[in-house]
Amino acid sequence: MGSMKTLKVALLGCGNVGAQVARILIDDAEVLAARTGARLQLTGIAVRDVAAKRTVDLPAELFTTEAEPLIKDADIVIELLGGLEPARTLIRSAIDNGAAVVTGNKALLAADGQDLYARADEAGVELSFEAAVAGAIPLLRPIRESLAGDRITKVMGIVNGTTNYILDQMDSTGAQFADALAAAQELGYAEADPTADVEGHDAAAKGAILAELAFHTPFDLANVQCQGISSITADDIAAAKDAGYVIKLLSIAERLRGLDGREGVAVRVHPTLLPRQHPLAAVHGAFNAVFVEAENAGEMMFYGQGAGGAPTASAVLGDVVSAGRRMVGGGPGRTETATVQLPAVGLDSVKTSYYIGLDVADQPGVLSQIAGVFAEHGVSIETMRQTIHAEDPHDTANDGGQVTAELRFVTHRASEASLAATVEAVRGLDIVNAVISVLRVEGI
Amino acid sequence: MGSMKTLKVALLGCGNVGAQVARILIDDAEVLAARTGARLQLTGIAVRDVAAKRTVDLPAELFTTEAEPLIKDADIVIELLGGLEPARTLIRSAIDNGAAVVTGNKALLAADGQDLYARADEAGVELSFEAAVAGAIPLLRPIRESLAGDRITKVMGIVNGTTNYILDQMDSTGAQFADALAAAQELGYAEADPTADVEGHDAAAKGAILAELAFHTPFDLANVQCQGISSITADDIAAAKDAGYVIKLLSIAERLRGLDGREGVAVRVHPTLLPRQHPLAAVHGAFNAVFVEAENAGEMMFYGQGAGGAPTASAVLGDVVSAGRRMVGGGPGRTETATVQLPAVGLDSVKTSYYIGLDVADQPGVLSQIAGVFAEHGVSIETMRQTIHAEDPHDTANDGGQVTAELRFVTHRASEASLAATVEAVRGLDIVNAVISVLRVEGI
Repeated sequence: MGSMKTLKVALLGCGNVGAQVARILIDDAEVLAARTGARLQLTGIAVRDVAAKRTVDLPAELFTTEAEPLIKDADIVIELLGGLEPARTLIRSAIDNGAAVVTGNKALLAADGQDLYARADEAGVELSFEAAVAGAIPLLRPIRESLAGDRITKVMGIVNGTTNYILDQMDSTGAQFADALAAAQELGYAEADPTADVEGHDAAAKGAILAELAFHTPFDLANVQCQGISSITADDIAAAKDAGYVIKLLSIAERLRGLDGREGVAVRVHPTLLPRQHPLAAVHGAFNAVFVEAENAGEMMFYGQGAGGAPTASAVLGDVVSAGRRMVGGGPGRTETATVQLPAVGLDSVKTSYYIGLDVADQPGVLSQIAGVFAEHGVSIETMRQTIHAEDPHDTANDGGQVTAELRFVTHRASEASLAATVEAVRGLDIVNAVISVLRVEGI
Repeated sequence: MGSMKTLKVALLGCGNVGAQVARILIDDAEVLAARTGARLQLTGIAVRDVAAKRTVDLPAELFTTEAEPLIKDADIVIELLGGLEPARTLIRSAIDNGAAVVTGNKALLAADGQDLYARADEAGVELSFEAAVAGAIPLLRPIRESLAGDRITKVMGIVNGTTNYILDQMDSTGAQFADALAAAQELGYAEADPTADVEGHDAAAKGAILAELAFHTPFDLANVQCQGISSITADDIAAAKDAGYVIKLLSIAERLRGLDGREGVAVRVHPTLLPRQHPLAAVHGAFNAVFVEAENAGEMMFYGQGAGGAPTASAVLGDVVSAGRRMVGGGPGRTETATVQLPAVGLDSVKTSYYIGLDVADQPGVLSQIAGVFAEHGVSIETMRQTIHAEDPHDTANDGGQVTAELRFVTHRASEASLAATVEAVRGLDIVNAVISVLRVEGI
């Protein structure tokens, strides 16, 4: 290894992931050098507070508050600061200096990725971001390279560990949302302010990046249709379970034709019923998975840790070794794949299935009336289940008061617009006391 | 695209997969050119019988029985003949001519891969084989590149669709092995002579390739310990189900220290109990999946179609596009990863868990005697379940004849040698009527 080239690596940020990246760069230097074909020398770690306590013991002399000099001297810059600034300015500076950039910053990529990709392309440097979506799960290379001879049509991801943990708890213990959230907070799976996770904002940002990855197109976060899980009740989960489904929060990106006939991309995040036999249904706890449908390859799934220091650090280092190999051996960087400009398509154009739970009067002709409304809107019913409720025991008048029933429908695929119109029309029927739940169904 | 370079592609073989590869090369020429940065021109298809019927309509003028002239003229050679010869000779010839080679030939790679890799390295050409293991599932790039900064410790694969289909049928319908096999044969999932599949030989060849992929080492097929599924009964499946497990045929490759303390690799194929919550348990029908454990990334799984014309063709074309990109843009080929020489380690060094079913006399002290045998061998018990059998109704003598019980143990991890010795010692006890089943357990 005497004649081996040395590549200088600058690390920006030393949180959970950054500290693990530094540890691995130091402890596994030999293995990394053999894989890269060059020594990877960690030249410094830029942080806000040099004296702050780290999760890993690292040499004090590596720390500095001055990021710019580190960047100017580096072959590879690893950005793990998170947030928009100063991350954006520092990444631009690294690109301007001709360094390869590896980042795990999904917020920045979702907000400003296209500008950064364009700058990297222009400068002829590599910008890689395996760690930004689904933590340790290898997605970038399988999707960009292994499937380069195929066409991806749809991607469905469980990409937020917090909400998957909460829904999995509700499913396995029957807990209500609030209790499962509290349990997740206690275990450190959910933050004190869980809004970004439970309302689907984090999953939306990752959905936009997934769409960009899968369809080689820019996708604006503002065009993601997003619904969180805070309104999911223990009853919803129990009813779904009873019918053979599990409820998961999915980020779904698909390539389809819009109402104007043009091909485009729709991205949506919402709680979704999945058959319990579906591979995504077996993703438990805080794990992540991305399910991909391609024209020739068919169905695939990639499963793994979505977060955590060491797992995410593994993804960062995969990118670092790849970038290093290219510096040693030459070859195409991120510019290698053609980019197209596909328009964002609204939810109206998406075809999906609905699960609809209704509280109805238990009297003859109810089902036929409701089925008529479905038919009018061109929505056909895949399955129907009826549960008769016992008469209210508190109704001591024994006046033959209304006995109610619960009807649960799963529809065949239909346009979102027809389904929404169907639900509204059904809601208007006299015999319908309440629409208990409306959830989308995938995987059937 | 006027000034775009053209790369000549020769196809050897036109079975199910080959015909799909040809179709995609012709039908999706534009997309492939955009992704590759060069036109991929299919110059010819070498087959034994030019007049044979194909599964896809292809231009007659492409077919030839003369492979060598095609190869001499090609930039990229796709070998989909299967079997050892003439595939080996033709691949060597392609390498000698400086062509990149893409193959899906697992038999040849398992038998002779090291020689071919070495020849390709020496000639500086790329030899890729994504389609050879787990069909359409991207494994090569995730394992070789995305995990380049990590260390894989264990790989467990469901890599044979036939046996997975049979076991899945037995699990869901309660069928016996012979009936499930017959059903698989009727559906074309199993061949008339199913030996290579059901006895695990196919899974063994893939296990050897998986080990090479994951651990960057040659691994000789002869060192794979292999046991098939033909002795699995409906009772085994039912008992496993009852205890919360499913039985899968797994190819397991792991990096571990042998009895001599040296680091090495063990590869084994055997029916395995997996907890029903395990991600591999959700792999149904003829699907394949590979579960990977890495030091930093933790647990990952890659799932998809293991066979079939179009899915496997997708994997072949991913390799073709990658090879083409490198020809256009330069850069490191297959030589990019360091290879080590790890010795094969015998099953004796592997630590695993056993599931042991015993038919015993139902009398006091039985459990204590058996538990004593476990303890003597240093094997500790994780769970025990007991089922008392009703007295034999045909035993009209009513002579107080022996009532039997069934004991089912799952052990903690112990060395294969201790476990085997434990089973032998238990078998020798007077109170043990029969050892009903011994199966290995993973994922606990």
